[in-house]
Amino acid sequence: MEPKVRQILDMNAFNPDAAGVPPGSLLARRQANIGAASVLFFREPIEMVSARGCWMQAADGRRYLDFYNNVPSVGHAHPRVVAAISQQVATLNIHTRYLNRWTEDYLDRLKGTLPKALSNVILTCTGSESNDLAMRMAMMASGGQGFVVTESAYHGNTLAVTGISPSALKHDGPPPNVAVVPPPSALAYGNNIAEGFGQAVTKAISTLKARDCLPAGLICDTIFSSDGVYADPPGFLGPAVAAMRKAGGLFIADEVQPGFARTGDAFWGFARHGVEPDIVTMGKPMANGFPMGGVAVRPALVEMFCESVGYFNTFGGNPVAAAAAMAVLETIEEENLQQNARTVGGYVLGRLQALSSHDPRITDVRGAGLFIGLDLCRDGDPKRPDPDLTSAVINGLRDRQVLIGAAGPYGHTLKIRPPLCLNRTEADIFVDALTDTLDATPSP
Amino acid sequence: MEPKVRQILDMNAFNPDAAGVPPGSLLARRQANIGAASVLFFREPIEMVSARGCWMQAADGRRYLDFYNNVPSVGHAHPRVVAAISQQVATLNIHTRYLNRWTEDYLDRLKGTLPKALSNVILTCTGSESNDLAMRMAMMASGGQGFVVTESAYHGNTLAVTGISPSALKHDGPPPNVAVVPPPSALAYGNNIAEGFGQAVTKAISTLKARDCLPAGLICDTIFSSDGVYADPPGFLGPAVAAMRKAGGLFIADEVQPGFARTGDAFWGFARHGVEPDIVTMGKPMANGFPMGGVAVRPALVEMFCESVGYFNTFGGNPVAAAAAMAVLETIEEENLQQNARTVGGYVLGRLQALSSHDPRITDVRGAGLFIGLDLCRDGDPKRPDPDLTSAVINGLRDRQVLIGAAGPYGHTLKIRPPLCLNRTEADIFVDALTDTLDATPSP
Repeated sequence: MEPKVRQILDMNAFNPDAAGVPPGSLLARRQANIGAASVLFFREPIEMVSARGCWMQAADGRRYLDFYNNVPSVGHAHPRVVAAISQQVATLNIHTRYLNRWTEDYLDRLKGTLPKALSNVILTCTGSESNDLAMRMAMMASGGQGFVVTESAYHGNTLAVTGISPSALKHDGPPPNVAVVPPPSALAYGNNIAEGFGQAVTKAISTLKARDCLPAGLICDTIFSSDGVYADPPGFLGPAVAAMRKAGGLFIADEVQPGFARTGDAFWGFARHGVEPDIVTMGKPMANGFPMGGVAVRPALVEMFCESVGYFNTFGGNPVAAAAAMAVLETIEEENLQQNARTVGGYVLGRLQALSSHDPRITDVRGAGLFIGLDLCRDGDPKRPDPDLTSAVINGLRDRQVLIGAAGPYGHTLKIRPPLCLNRTEADIFVDALTDTLDATPSP
Repeated sequence: MEPKVRQILDMNAFNPDAAGVPPGSLLARRQANIGAASVLFFREPIEMVSARGCWMQAADGRRYLDFYNNVPSVGHAHPRVVAAISQQVATLNIHTRYLNRWTEDYLDRLKGTLPKALSNVILTCTGSESNDLAMRMAMMASGGQGFVVTESAYHGNTLAVTGISPSALKHDGPPPNVAVVPPPSALAYGNNIAEGFGQAVTKAISTLKARDCLPAGLICDTIFSSDGVYADPPGFLGPAVAAMRKAGGLFIADEVQPGFARTGDAFWGFARHGVEPDIVTMGKPMANGFPMGGVAVRPALVEMFCESVGYFNTFGGNPVAAAAAMAVLETIEEENLQQNARTVGGYVLGRLQALSSHDPRITDVRGAGLFIGLDLCRDGDPKRPDPDLTSAVINGLRDRQVLIGAAGPYGHTLKIRPPLCLNRTEADIFVDALTDTLDATPSP
């Protein structure tokens, strides 16, 4: 197998050294303002000026079909969300140390989608804050410090959460309290993914114990986005979760990526696998771009946590966030977006599978609902990932006005993740553009 | 001196066990939704329905003067901020991996307020995320892991940041990589606060080294809010900062509380002290309640950091946050709010000092601009803090429709921190209500 590409983005990203930056341009200002932390998509970055539904409008007059962004999940600038935010921000925007009905109305409704046992929800501002808090609760509940994660996992950007995010580390491996397992893929575990993944978690727990580190939890993005998107067969999480619980640790379902109806089959990614998490963490699509995250957990765990440490999040769960997030839940229901993710996602998957039968470079297409991964390899060999081709395809699609990105440890997986309101016409535009791009792109 | 009260809030907060919760009430739903993490202000919580300027409207028809909330810093529901958010959220709300002019326009303007050397600004969603990132940068730049903080500091809620927030820890002290110093008060250091505080930091550095922990940085909320509000004499930070730099660590100015013109004297709290931080962190008032934070730092530090770890914040610096934050900067300038904080803050301070000369229970009044601390003690003895009286006063003010809170290790400091648009009439309402409350409240 090829050496892994730790920083997938670097491949498709704008390189200011190679490209040159016109003085005084927006790009030059950006480089001056953000410096080395500036990462821009594509060899030639795009300046955006507006967006609506699945479409983004660039400053150069071109319109792009968004097949990448899962934060504006019910569609860019959705009128219901815009109205909710505009009305609420003009009315009341305050922390939750006073009562307000919007926050409780939202929590009541959100809890209707969650397992009954997880009846306390602590609202935060980001998925990173949610996972950071979940780690702390798992450590306290288990008495351990160790976490098991997949080898290209990404769970966020705090100090603690970066430790459980191997894909964010450019040179080093994760800290000693973190053990990694290959993602639940056929490539790693053959025909019995559930059993193989469970055994890998058991082995990782032994690794932790050998380091004198008791396990605190298994944390999984239940669609394994940054690992390359792994959804099937439903149920494969069962043995891994059981192994972690047997060892005294908790199961944290990171629903930042798969949650809120994206997988079509279920409202939450874990629900596809028939497991009930100890902690569910939320972020990105929760309020369609208004910064918001959350941690759902059993009351006893919150009580244990708060006995020793206070937790308060100033912006977390403010009435504007609650109003925006309520508008998201209402829109998912009224526009039938979970069903849409299933049917339109299935349609995209079918067309991509047909395409793969004509193009041997496509070695696998997989996913659930509107979250699909497509592998590009050399000579039809799934063990020879082709990140250069993948990068060429991503930039070729950009030239054809379709926005997409990559995932996976080798950067050879197209990450296909449009807003949930995608229709078939838009789906066809994407698949046709991909077909055209692949036809025009010889393998490097 | 009395034993310290670690959880100041608990004193003034609603106690569901003592008070009883009507079934089906908003309060009951809140307890069911958030559980043990629910902390509500006042013995009898208030349900808010709207707010404007310095006033908040409760569900029971009563209107409250807000003398506590520093997040809606330019005033609740400020029309300019409301318009900016409403317009931008209907136009474009996306991460910063595409270019957009709003984010760079904002950063250009924000940087105009900061030391020139700190020309990179990484935008986050909260002060906690900002301080977490600042800690990581300081550790990387110094090669150390140790931090010096004041003994009742609060810097946020992530795992790492909770470690440098002794006031959030209910039973234990901070972890071994954290050494605490008394806040820069006359009570702790007598007449030479600058020298005493500097010596305390030097001693704390030795403590860290004795634990085999090299110092990474000194982090200060430059108005020392949770320690009880310490502002004077300007310049007292100098020797402490010099001591930390001499030991190889950085100085992180946590401007979440004093930043954005609150102190009246300067736009940033550190500027009052004539020191230039290595890292400036921002949060709360930055976008008047839209979740937003930031870290300003030298480009070389960002480069060093990004060489080993990727940092990306999905919601950080999105165009809606940028538009809201730009409206805040514009409002501060156009409404002359820094000047207003100085003059109206000075007026409040003067009236409170006059009040203290008639009431021996007020042992000290201090602050800068619209951030004032007022100590309540027994028998006029500054060494006999009176948290019970303080709690009674806070709840008495609530009954008189004025919102306020407490600070400091003994919970005996009134934290006076209204929106920056406060006028003299409103200032008088507060001081009159406080006078009335004190008159009506015998020392318990």
